[in-house]
Amino acid sequence: MRRLSTLDELRISRLSLDGTVGLVPTMGYLHEGHLSLIRRARDECNHVVVSIFINPTQFGPKEDLSKYPRDLERDLHLIASLETPSSASEFIVWTPSAESMYPQGYQTWVEVEAMTRPLEGAVRPGHFKGVTTVVAKLFNAVQPHKAYFGQKDAQQVAVIRQMVRDLNFPLGIVVCPTTREADGLAMSSRNIYLNSEQRKAATVLFRSLSAAKELFERGERNAETLRVKMKDVLAGEPLAEVQYVSCTDYDTLEELDEIKGKTLLSMAVFIGKTRLIDNFVLGQNLDGI
Amino acid sequence: MRRLSTLDELRISRLSLDGTVGLVPTMGYLHEGHLSLIRRARDECNHVVVSIFINPTQFGPKEDLSKYPRDLERDLHLIASLETPSSASEFIVWTPSAESMYPQGYQTWVEVEAMTRPLEGAVRPGHFKGVTTVVAKLFNAVQPHKAYFGQKDAQQVAVIRQMVRDLNFPLGIVVCPTTREADGLAMSSRNIYLNSEQRKAATVLFRSLSAAKELFERGERNAETLRVKMKDVLAGEPLAEVQYVSCTDYDTLEELDEIKGKTLLSMAVFIGKTRLIDNFVLGQNLDGI
Repeated sequence: MRRLSTLDELRISRLSLDGTVGLVPTMGYLHEGHLSLIRRARDECNHVVVSIFINPTQFGPKEDLSKYPRDLERDLHLIASLETPSSASEFIVWTPSAESMYPQGYQTWVEVEAMTRPLEGAVRPGHFKGVTTVVAKLFNAVQPHKAYFGQKDAQQVAVIRQMVRDLNFPLGIVVCPTTREADGLAMSSRNIYLNSEQRKAATVLFRSLSAAKELFERGERNAETLRVKMKDVLAGEPLAEVQYVSCTDYDTLEELDEIKGKTLLSMAVFIGKTRLIDNFVLGQNLDGI
Repeated sequence: MRRLSTLDELRISRLSLDGTVGLVPTMGYLHEGHLSLIRRARDECNHVVVSIFINPTQFGPKEDLSKYPRDLERDLHLIASLETPSSASEFIVWTPSAESMYPQGYQTWVEVEAMTRPLEGAVRPGHFKGVTTVVAKLFNAVQPHKAYFGQKDAQQVAVIRQMVRDLNFPLGIVVCPTTREADGLAMSSRNIYLNSEQRKAATVLFRSLSAAKELFERGERNAETLRVKMKDVLAGEPLAEVQYVSCTDYDTLEELDEIKGKTLLSMAVFIGKTRLIDNFVLGQNLDGI
């Protein structure tokens, strides 16, 4: 594993990489979900680049940038542990500084419009502008053939796929299934904020999504019926405060009346002060772009 | 010379290009200025891609999109005439359609902020948002090592250089000198709008810039003195209506009090209904990024 910090170091190393390059963009504090992305990239590409960068521009002024968890030594150890003798080459871990990513005079932004307005975009203004900008920067810096994202951040995945199509980025987006704890809680770096009582309550997102999915599998196609079912289950958990519950088209993120094609059930729920998101995809496998 | 229309055709051809690729983005109706860019790309790169695309998103609602001059057959003939036996490979001319560049549901934009507010940005709202977006798309589609732009569009050059730095595009911007008619008029596809009386009057931009440059070369370093000189010369031409006259830092485009480093003199002037722009760079050669 090679750790690189500056863009120049990365560019020089990138020039020496023959064959396919897979990029796994992360904000660090890696959990099993990230590791599943790295393994997939390792299995599909000749070279793997993992970026670790807590991107300040995707955090709102009242969000948790300063206390976002970090543990670089642990992250590097975890990444190194995934290198196997059969890996085509050593991994590259790129850890740029915020000052190098957004130097004095920085003034360029990439924005996806309609699709960033609902859901996370509605409650986190500016979030996706920061996400699309940094992801465009990472794509240009690393020049990967494939980039790996988790389905956990469903709207992020939809927005990045749209950006890639619209701006002609020459790469494929690989969407990997959400990794979950044994009791169904989606893995997230923010789960460490939960105390033990909250941790138990946090399974309500999975239970709520599962209940709606069960209705769907029994033939229900009315989107509002699924939204009501999810809200009902969430309402049964006193520690949960719902921010949104949604049933949209998977690609456009437009709220549905009737379910026809690939569909996204998603939600944002506060458990205490910790904001959790989760989602299920109905109606199709979720692989590929 | 190979002419390609779709993005897929371009991508397939691009994969077969070894060595360096130079991109010359144009809106067609080529003149000697464009040809000088293509020659330079030919001399510096193994492969040359010329894009011809009249980008609708950089025209305002009251601007000349519908009547912008076009003559594709002539353009193709001119480009082919630049291929020499010593050219490393045949040129690629890419002529995407507006529908393929901005399909139904298109919603992603690249914006450079501070630098696009003055000068052209102030009188052409939205213009640079269209320019940076389409140039980002061209860069991602063609993946050039170098892209060639004319100094004639001075603010465009500054904005694109900023975008390339900010978004980590892995390429160099080559800025080529403005090509001029014998009497100094900067070549422009829009010059054909001028009738014979206006064509004579149009030399006032060059004369005005030359007068200011002469002051500079005699030691004048007060920016306002140069602006006043340019305005005075322009005021002597009854057919000229000044939109702006400017003396800014070359890189930041901030208006100057005192001239210290590389400096941009620029102006936009209506001759009849035809809007012309021109500029001189003072204080340094203008090559490279």
